[in-house]
Amino acid sequence: MPGKNRKISANVRRRAARVRLLLMDVDGTLTDGHVYLVSQADGTALEMKCFNAQDGQGLTLAAQAGLRTGVISGRESPAMRRRAKESRIEFVCEGTAVKIPAYEDLLRKTHLSEEQVGYIGDDLPDLPVMRRVGFSVAVANAVPEVMQAAHHVTQRAGGDGAVREVIEIILKAQGKWESLISKAKA
Amino acid sequence: MPGKNRKISANVRRRAARVRLLLMDVDGTLTDGHVYLVSQADGTALEMKCFNAQDGQGLTLAAQAGLRTGVISGRESPAMRRRAKESRIEFVCEGTAVKIPAYEDLLRKTHLSEEQVGYIGDDLPDLPVMRRVGFSVAVANAVPEVMQAAHHVTQRAGGDGAVREVIEIILKAQGKWESLISKAKA
Amino acid sequence: MPGKNRKISANVRRRAARVRLLLMDVDGTLTDGHVYLVSQADGTALEMKCFNAQDGQGLTLAAQAGLRTGVISGRESPAMRRRAKESRIEFVCEGTAVKIPAYEDLLRKTHLSEEQVGYIGDDLPDLPVMRRVGFSVAVANAVPEVMQAAHHVTQRAGGDGAVREVIEIILKAQGKWESLISKAKA
Amino acid sequence: MPGKNRKISANVRRRAARVRLLLMDVDGTLTDGHVYLVSQADGTALEMKCFNAQDGQGLTLAAQAGLRTGVISGRESPAMRRRAKESRIEFVCEGTAVKIPAYEDLLRKTHLSEEQVGYIGDDLPDLPVMRRVGFSVAVANAVPEVMQAAHHVTQRAGGDGAVREVIEIILKAQGKWESLISKAKA
Repeated sequence: MPGKNRKISANVRRRAARVRLLLMDVDGTLTDGHVYLVSQADGTALEMKCFNAQDGQGLTLAAQAGLRTGVISGRESPAMRRRAKESRIEFVCEGTAVKIPAYEDLLRKTHLSEEQVGYIGDDLPDLPVMRRVGFSVAVANAVPEVMQAAHHVTQRAGGDGAVREVIEIILKAQGKWESLISKAKA
Repeated sequence: MPGKNRKISANVRRRAARVRLLLMDVDGTLTDGHVYLVSQADGTALEMKCFNAQDGQGLTLAAQAGLRTGVISGRESPAMRRRAKESRIEFVCEGTAVKIPAYEDLLRKTHLSEEQVGYIGDDLPDLPVMRRVGFSVAVANAVPEVMQAAHHVTQRAGGDGAVREVIEIILKAQGKWESLISKAKA
Repeated sequence: MPGKNRKISANVRRRAARVRLLLMDVDGTLTDGHVYLVSQADGTALEMKCFNAQDGQGLTLAAQAGLRTGVISGRESPAMRRRAKESRIEFVCEGTAVKIPAYEDLLRKTHLSEEQVGYIGDDLPDLPVMRRVGFSVAVANAVPEVMQAAHHVTQRAGGDGAVREVIEIILKAQGKWESLISKAKA
Repeated sequence: MPGKNRKISANVRRRAARVRLLLMDVDGTLTDGHVYLVSQADGTALEMKCFNAQDGQGLTLAAQAGLRTGVISGRESPAMRRRAKESRIEFVCEGTAVKIPAYEDLLRKTHLSEEQVGYIGDDLPDLPVMRRVGFSVAVANAVPEVMQAAHHVTQRAGGDGAVREVIEIILKAQGKWESLISKAKA
């Protein structure tokens, strides 16, 4: 369960309260880290990704609350683009083995400072962006180097609700969570 | 194992005994909460859902015992419709981001009172229906707000037998389980 | 790991030693109990099954050792038929909601007595056959009624090596395992 | 997490330090041991394999560090070939029920001694190669016979980061890991 029995430190709350744009890695962060490939009769293979329904709900809540979101991925994927549309993810940057140029491009587009950006990742290519943003988060299944570099480590793994957990931390730190829940109950 | 070593409270048994129509959320309740998307060569993506064989068996037992069933989902899915046919689920309401209108429509169609309806869910969009039905159930992987709102929380997660577990509770409370088992053994 | 740290009772060994034909349920026994459905653009859905590589290896060893194998399933599936061919499963009986007629047909075809047949299952439709065969096995994820009816319960779940585990028990009880391993090492 | 809280013995480090070519089994080693089959409308079935994103990242790091890699598999698979290209795996030997001829062919092609070869496997067909290479590794989900034959057993299962774990052991033993991490942080 997202955030159950978990104390969030004052430092994490302060950092989360400033986030206006939440960026995410895809494989291992928004998905469960599996790369599924389906062999085709013509000798090619199609890719499948595994997303999480509660993450999708969280991303929709983020959009309702005015928190902007985006993904930066080294791989290109129609699956990711469809999921972005369904979950109201605003920015989809794909096919960038190196993530800093895409990150800097988003800073320019959104006119936000680095303090206002959050980033969730699991592996080495996420490190350069994580070292610059105001709120960096490692998922529970991240490699040790990414855990050490993060301001916060989630309880749940990528594709198992880690993104939902981070969105709740941010929206709670910003005092927006309770009114979303009240609206949801109606 | 469904229901193993588990005491069901008298209140839950009383509520379960009245249920004539069992409604369910789909993603995270009748499935395992994963949203699988398969990239296609033309740039689109197809969706895959992951159901549970023992849930399917339970839904078939429910139909044999005269317990009516239905799903209410925010997403549209040929996979869900095929699964409904295989598992003898009577009502399939899809593409309804807000679930109350579909719920009220089913009340009218079935001429049942709210006390006679059960509902199983895992996330915030399930709350409005759960607050009205006679027997509301949260799956083991539900978000905290849904767990708090439920009359009962299952031991098994969505897509891992949670629906089967609820069907057994209902059919046992109604004294119908034993004769189904005897028939199955023959 | 199949068979690790596990004492097999003398009764189970005696029953296993007599088995000449090992029959299996499919969903939840030879697969992991998930029913995956892939939505298609034309509104239909295709089914995917999840088998286990070590089970496949075990079934191939069984064939090498002269142990005959077969599946009896309520569903029809090209996936199952391909897997049967790859794993050298001799008999594939599909689309039989009731399993006894298929079972009796196999008895006639193989000229075996019921004592010489083993069966692995997980759910209620498996009970009638399990009550007749000489060696009945429930997988670790079986429902309680099936566990109670079985001569043996596996440590591993269906689709996670349960079938391999049973094949090892049988071939060890028949004194055939060691020579298979020696041959494999060469 | 790969390698977390784990002492690697001096013997394993010495063997790992010599490896110039890392060979791997596919099903159960580079994948999670599941064999997914998708039924098609024409009665055939397509295969899907489940790889791991962190393994893929590790294989790319191996290529950057000059460690050559290859797979030897009994099955043929367009999915494996696409994954090999994405992850910079140099050698793909498929459809070889017996693995020794493919192994000896790779020795000739690479002009390496057996001491300079590592192999990761999970099941009986891996034993003959494992008994010859300088550094043999069993994944956490390997069968007992393979575990006993291995110089090292990984903490993580196949398809869950076992290959990444082995690549880290090798590159750390060769003193190449730290500079890769420094480069990744930049």
